Amino acid sequence: MFEVVHYSKKSRARVGRLHTAHGIIDTPTFVPVATNASIKAVDSTHINEVGVQLLFCNTYHLLLHPGPEVVAAAGGLHNFMGRTAPLITDSGGFQVFSLAYGSVFDELKSKGLKKQNGSIIKVSEEGVRFRSYRDGALVLLTPESTVQVQKALASDIIIPLDELPPYHIDKRVLRASLERTHRWEKRSLDEHLKNPQRQIMYAVVHGGVDPELRARSAQYLGLLPFDGFAIGGSLGKTREEMVSMLSVLMPQLLPERPVHLLGIGDLSSLESCVPLGIDSFDSSYPTKCARHGILLSSEGPINITRSQWKNVHTPISDAPLCSHYSAAYLHHLFKAHESVAHTLVSLHNIHFMNNLMAQYRQLIMEDRV
Amino acid sequence: MFEVVHYSKKSRARVGRLHTAHGIIDTPTFVPVATNASIKAVDSTHINEVGVQLLFCNTYHLLLHPGPEVVAAAGGLHNFMGRTAPLITDSGGFQVFSLAYGSVFDELKSKGLKKQNGSIIKVSEEGVRFRSYRDGALVLLTPESTVQVQKALASDIIIPLDELPPYHIDKRVLRASLERTHRWEKRSLDEHLKNPQRQIMYAVVHGGVDPELRARSAQYLGLLPFDGFAIGGSLGKTREEMVSMLSVLMPQLLPERPVHLLGIGDLSSLESCVPLGIDSFDSSYPTKCARHGILLSSEGPINITRSQWKNVHTPISDAPLCSHYSAAYLHHLFKAHESVAHTLVSLHNIHFMNNLMAQYRQLIMEDRV
Repeated sequence: MFEVVHYSKKSRARVGRLHTAHGIIDTPTFVPVATNASIKAVDSTHINEVGVQLLFCNTYHLLLHPGPEVVAAAGGLHNFMGRTAPLITDSGGFQVFSLAYGSVFDELKSKGLKKQNGSIIKVSEEGVRFRSYRDGALVLLTPESTVQVQKALASDIIIPLDELPPYHIDKRVLRASLERTHRWEKRSLDEHLKNPQRQIMYAVVHGGVDPELRARSAQYLGLLPFDGFAIGGSLGKTREEMVSMLSVLMPQLLPERPVHLLGIGDLSSLESCVPLGIDSFDSSYPTKCARHGILLSSEGPINITRSQWKNVHTPISDAPLCSHYSAAYLHHLFKAHESVAHTLVSLHNIHFMNNLMAQYRQLIMEDRV
Repeated sequence: MFEVVHYSKKSRARVGRLHTAHGIIDTPTFVPVATNASIKAVDSTHINEVGVQLLFCNTYHLLLHPGPEVVAAAGGLHNFMGRTAPLITDSGGFQVFSLAYGSVFDELKSKGLKKQNGSIIKVSEEGVRFRSYRDGALVLLTPESTVQVQKALASDIIIPLDELPPYHIDKRVLRASLERTHRWEKRSLDEHLKNPQRQIMYAVVHGGVDPELRARSAQYLGLLPFDGFAIGGSLGKTREEMVSMLSVLMPQLLPERPVHLLGIGDLSSLESCVPLGIDSFDSSYPTKCARHGILLSSEGPINITRSQWKNVHTPISDAPLCSHYSAAYLHHLFKAHESVAHTLVSLHNIHFMNNLMAQYRQLIMEDRV
């Protein structure tokens, strides 16, 4: 299911091939985010054209709209959104908790003083009860129900329910949260294994920035027949803290299982984390950048909205679609607030990420990373 | 330049072929609007794919951004926006006046009480001085300067400067406005003929809802070597008033010149005006509809945001790109506020308009319209 093609002699980096029901994923890989079963401003046809081996959709959003029964009636998320290549979905838990706590960044700024905004009604052993941001309806998400939803979505890689504890947390409380997360993940796995179909499930490794709890999580989850690991929970206040934590954690994960880093995909983090052996990264960073007029490039980010591009009448991109247009036209589209600008630059940035990961794979093959 | 292929035996409708520097336009035709050198949410590649023989861009907007010097440096609007087929641009006058007076609809609601909002500084024999809506800069638009701008844009069909008088206007004032418009159009034509390049120029017929003034305008402009007519100014309060005015006006226009109806392209108006001999219609109606989730169809408009489409897992469109997706997915994209929805439904509606006009041409060939 996951084959390692080459281990770098220089680092823990590795080149792999992940076999899923909808095709093969070359790792390490970057995974764009299509929250509502659509990358913002880009349709699936163009995602296929630019080539995206793995795409991330959010169960939380799809649970609330259109609902799993609609996607199931369509024959699964691939059919629903017109995609033939692999998909990964999360459990929905992350959004429930992060919408309640605010983002990690917001929380760090508020020094732990931020209170829940009330969208979570109750967290119990059973699961988490919350109000839909769409219509205020009460929703219960359990370790079993998230798997049932992800079965309806029929994504290739699915994720068990976990609790996202806040960064500012007492160790005793963090330990209790971790234990419950482990019980939840086991229940999700049991539910999945009743009817695996052709899906695979990644455990979510927790423990915040506590090395002991991370080690405990790695060990416990490694004993269960998960197909891979996703690294969740708080990764620290800074990139250094994240890299330091991952440097300790990664050697404790079973090497034969693929490892996904949840929600991280900026260029510096990739540079730090590929050598640690992370196999996949999801992030909305390249598409969010695109909507602000930032083109990623090997010479650093390019802000196409700056006036220096107003009169540059040559293409600035070699990406599908985007390469048809000059820098001056892209500049104009942003200045004129035309949403096509988002389409074109999103394709550029996804194309850039694809090339970047292909370069990483090549460098690993040559033991240069 | 304009050849009539067939005159209907049933009405004044006709099938024609308009030859321009960038290709042939089959008439009657529908002309989508790409105000800022982009149809909203649709890139030029897809416009080419769906097939649009003539596209309308707004000189007013392009004058203010990116400016004619940028478009000229790109080698003209075709190069700038990546289009190979014909383009038509207006003079910019319509937007200057309509942004000052408000739309005809707003003005009708206000019964002529609405005052200028101040964006026009001065209308004189020289031209019109206004403030840019972008940065407040003072701009002077003259009969000559609009032609120079449209030469820089290098569109295939260009329009002379005219004054857009308000609907509520005294006949004496309307007559004075018409006389000045005629003088302005003559000056624009003279400027154009100094260096025609391969552009053609349509006169704008004015006179509001006054048959005598419309006749006068048709006669005066027919004496000048314009390549076609555009019908501008107030067309009345209702479709009936418009049809009644056009029924009187159309037989007074030289039959060998093509006739464009400015800013009108809803389905009922097409049904009324194709038999009067109008050859082209521009309107943002199909793309505006699209952004509100309205798909045009031969059985009437379809509101894809209605819940009846939530579970319809078959395509609803035979248009490029849009045909890849189910009605349920389009419904979901609108509900999730994903801008790709606008892209897909805009392509559907443009495709629908293309087919509709092809049907009209066929019916005219068979003398059934």
